[in-house]
Amino acid sequence: MIDYMEKEKPSLEEIFSPRGVAVVGASPSGGWATQVVQSLKEAGFPAIYPVNPKHSEVLGLPCYAGVNKIPGPVDHVIVSIPAESVLAVLDDCAARGVKSVQLFTAGFSESGYAERAELEKTMLRKARAGGFRIIGPNSVGIFVPKNRLANKIATPMEPGPIAFISQSGGYVEDIPLSFEPRGVRFSRGVSYGNALDVNESELLEYLSADPDTRIIAIYIEGVRDGRRFLKALREAAARKPVVLCKGGTTEAGQRTTFSHTASLTSSVAVFNALCRQMKVIQVDDIEELIDMLVALNFSNPPPQGAGVAIIGIGGGVSVLAADEMEKAGLHLPGLSPEVQAELRQFIPLAGGILGNPVDAGNVLSTESITTTTRVVSRAVSQVADIHTLVYHLGFHPLTFWGNGQFSSETFLRPVIDAFQEVRQTTGKPVLLVLRPATNLEGMKDFLAAQAAFTAAGFPVFYSMRRTARAMARLLAWNQG
Amino acid sequence: MIDYMEKEKPSLEEIFSPRGVAVVGASPSGGWATQVVQSLKEAGFPAIYPVNPKHSEVLGLPCYAGVNKIPGPVDHVIVSIPAESVLAVLDDCAARGVKSVQLFTAGFSESGYAERAELEKTMLRKARAGGFRIIGPNSVGIFVPKNRLANKIATPMEPGPIAFISQSGGYVEDIPLSFEPRGVRFSRGVSYGNALDVNESELLEYLSADPDTRIIAIYIEGVRDGRRFLKALREAAARKPVVLCKGGTTEAGQRTTFSHTASLTSSVAVFNALCRQMKVIQVDDIEELIDMLVALNFSNPPPQGAGVAIIGIGGGVSVLAADEMEKAGLHLPGLSPEVQAELRQFIPLAGGILGNPVDAGNVLSTESITTTTRVVSRAVSQVADIHTLVYHLGFHPLTFWGNGQFSSETFLRPVIDAFQEVRQTTGKPVLLVLRPATNLEGMKDFLAAQAAFTAAGFPVFYSMRRTARAMARLLAWNQG
Repeated sequence: MIDYMEKEKPSLEEIFSPRGVAVVGASPSGGWATQVVQSLKEAGFPAIYPVNPKHSEVLGLPCYAGVNKIPGPVDHVIVSIPAESVLAVLDDCAARGVKSVQLFTAGFSESGYAERAELEKTMLRKARAGGFRIIGPNSVGIFVPKNRLANKIATPMEPGPIAFISQSGGYVEDIPLSFEPRGVRFSRGVSYGNALDVNESELLEYLSADPDTRIIAIYIEGVRDGRRFLKALREAAARKPVVLCKGGTTEAGQRTTFSHTASLTSSVAVFNALCRQMKVIQVDDIEELIDMLVALNFSNPPPQGAGVAIIGIGGGVSVLAADEMEKAGLHLPGLSPEVQAELRQFIPLAGGILGNPVDAGNVLSTESITTTTRVVSRAVSQVADIHTLVYHLGFHPLTFWGNGQFSSETFLRPVIDAFQEVRQTTGKPVLLVLRPATNLEGMKDFLAAQAAFTAAGFPVFYSMRRTARAMARLLAWNQG
Repeated sequence: MIDYMEKEKPSLEEIFSPRGVAVVGASPSGGWATQVVQSLKEAGFPAIYPVNPKHSEVLGLPCYAGVNKIPGPVDHVIVSIPAESVLAVLDDCAARGVKSVQLFTAGFSESGYAERAELEKTMLRKARAGGFRIIGPNSVGIFVPKNRLANKIATPMEPGPIAFISQSGGYVEDIPLSFEPRGVRFSRGVSYGNALDVNESELLEYLSADPDTRIIAIYIEGVRDGRRFLKALREAAARKPVVLCKGGTTEAGQRTTFSHTASLTSSVAVFNALCRQMKVIQVDDIEELIDMLVALNFSNPPPQGAGVAIIGIGGGVSVLAADEMEKAGLHLPGLSPEVQAELRQFIPLAGGILGNPVDAGNVLSTESITTTTRVVSRAVSQVADIHTLVYHLGFHPLTFWGNGQFSSETFLRPVIDAFQEVRQTTGKPVLLVLRPATNLEGMKDFLAAQAAFTAAGFPVFYSMRRTARAMARLLAWNQG
């Protein structure tokens, strides 16, 4: 029995498309709430209402003494004030008829103090009675590029196919911003923190049906309702690729999840087995999560088999690349004498390898590297049991970044044209492995080349091992 | 029976300290040999003799028609001319009484052609009869910073404790240059290519006794004489840390090693077992090789146990960091109530984690992050079963690179002082994990912070997983 009247709960769709947003705790002297106001301004959100009884203006916008003092419609309220003052704000929110309250404020159940856990429960009762939803507490909020709803300065606001939901707020801020250069773009981002009300299961159920979301990414530490979560996960994974990174898979990690988001995790082995069965793509860290998003984002269609050709420069690099691919369960078919004869016209006998991997050898000019890349890619892509082409750059001194050679139009344009031709005529994906430079001049080159390949729709990875792991997971998912 | 008179063979020590170096194939129009001349000039080597019958001057130096025409003493001859013309040069070398000939020239046994393999054998006979040694063919040569002997433009010539020998020339050029910012410096580098004469076993025997070499790194694909190699490896590993990366551990990799350096590899499982037994530190790729060199280079003494403390900012980051450490076999001891009480004065209740990992929480100013880092590092380093401190930066939006905050003297000086104090007073190593930035402004910051930490003698790693693997290997080696 519940001892209060529940109002009808607003839907997540309503939360993701607010007409007006209040930011409680914004101040002319800065702080997190003020940064949110700034990010909403930059994103062009039309109705932003800073709330702070001590100020009349924040970042050029009128500042209101309370949520109940705002003149226009307010659907979403972002709160960053001390935990002790939150209840009063929630009363205002109820009075004002808002649909959702997101609390950046932390220090509730995850602090380990009983009275703080009790405060959380009171908040939830107020939300149910007031007819609004709570996101968090201990959350950095939501972003919906399509609706210009931002939560972080400099987060790319170009809409994309990926929804990311995360128990960790840091990752919701980090991932869209840090990995923007690799072309990952988002439909929605949600940091649900302590998951007091809106939780991972409800979000998954929503995203499973969301037409704006083609790929779902999750960072999770523990779940509130295991049965509901597994059901939601199964249904989502049956409809879309779901990439999941679970924190707290070890004793020390589990201990830390409680302090972080008050999560209690369960048997890792059982969870892993269920994920495999449900075709959920599990990854072990955030780098792998991004690699998987890059692979899924650009693989349309995904590779049709385990056959890989590797093309680039460097003997040792080629040997270790072959090792990494085979260790990941991929296969490098040899090249027929006919294909080898074709390649021989472009690859020097000395210092080259006419096999798979192809080591394009000691080709010193941009022109010869470009020609070799074009010819070799075309020839190798015709081999029937090769399903993916992997091209690498920056691992060998001949292809070091830093002199402008491999970021120049002279190099990039014909190489990109060749890759696009391969992709169009054979339907086989082309993947780039670019080793990041270790100095500033080199990074200029590296970033320019990465930007050009990414803009042309090619996935870019940073190491042979990470490429192999992402490819193997993509293949297992596609064939599973 | 051999059908020719063998002269006494010069020692490797003689090869590494030549009085004069000839570079056959240098030309005013550039190319590999000319780059070698340039690199010797930049390194300040005193007696460089370009050799090319078509020219009288290369890069401002007199150019000679043949090795036999050089006026001064010539001990080492570097050759980059087509394979067909090599034998005549070797005759000149014999006549001139040189000690070693290094052949960049490739296209011998590794090409798969019988007549090219035969040519190699003739070369070896000439070397034995002429009393000189051959390095290569298919090699980019040797560098010895102490003797100003260079083989590559921009290779750092500051002497260091690491000797690197490699079947792959690309890695001998790549590693010293690419990983210079992480503080790895070399005593010797040798690309031995096809290992026609000087091979991995002889090099290991030499380096085992070399007083300039404290750490030995090897990239190997296959060996000529398994018995001799294993004996040399065992003896070297008993005296110094030996880090070994073997290419060709899979079917595709093995196939490629033959085309690369004409190597035949043997059972991987047997080799791996022998390496474990001999305390050779095996790594799976070049990134791990570098991580291991960084760990060994800066760990003096190495950690005395598996207890690790992780300190930084970010809840999700902390959870996944704990997972990575435990997965690698390391241990994160919890903190006592006394230590937690001490930390509580500096870490906010909201958004922080007072455990191990320590999440320093929402500390927004450089000053508060610096203070927290100092206090936490000192407090945690006093815990008896914590043997290593791992500090991370750049994984969480609060510590993003790009605004100059974490590369400023205001931040770096007090933090480095605190780490040095911990290291000196407790003898416990401090390791840094800095996530590289993904944009150019950020990279400026990242590189500056990395340079400051490296210069202060701290190892810098790029991901939690790579840090954990290097630490676990270091510990196993130290305790094995």
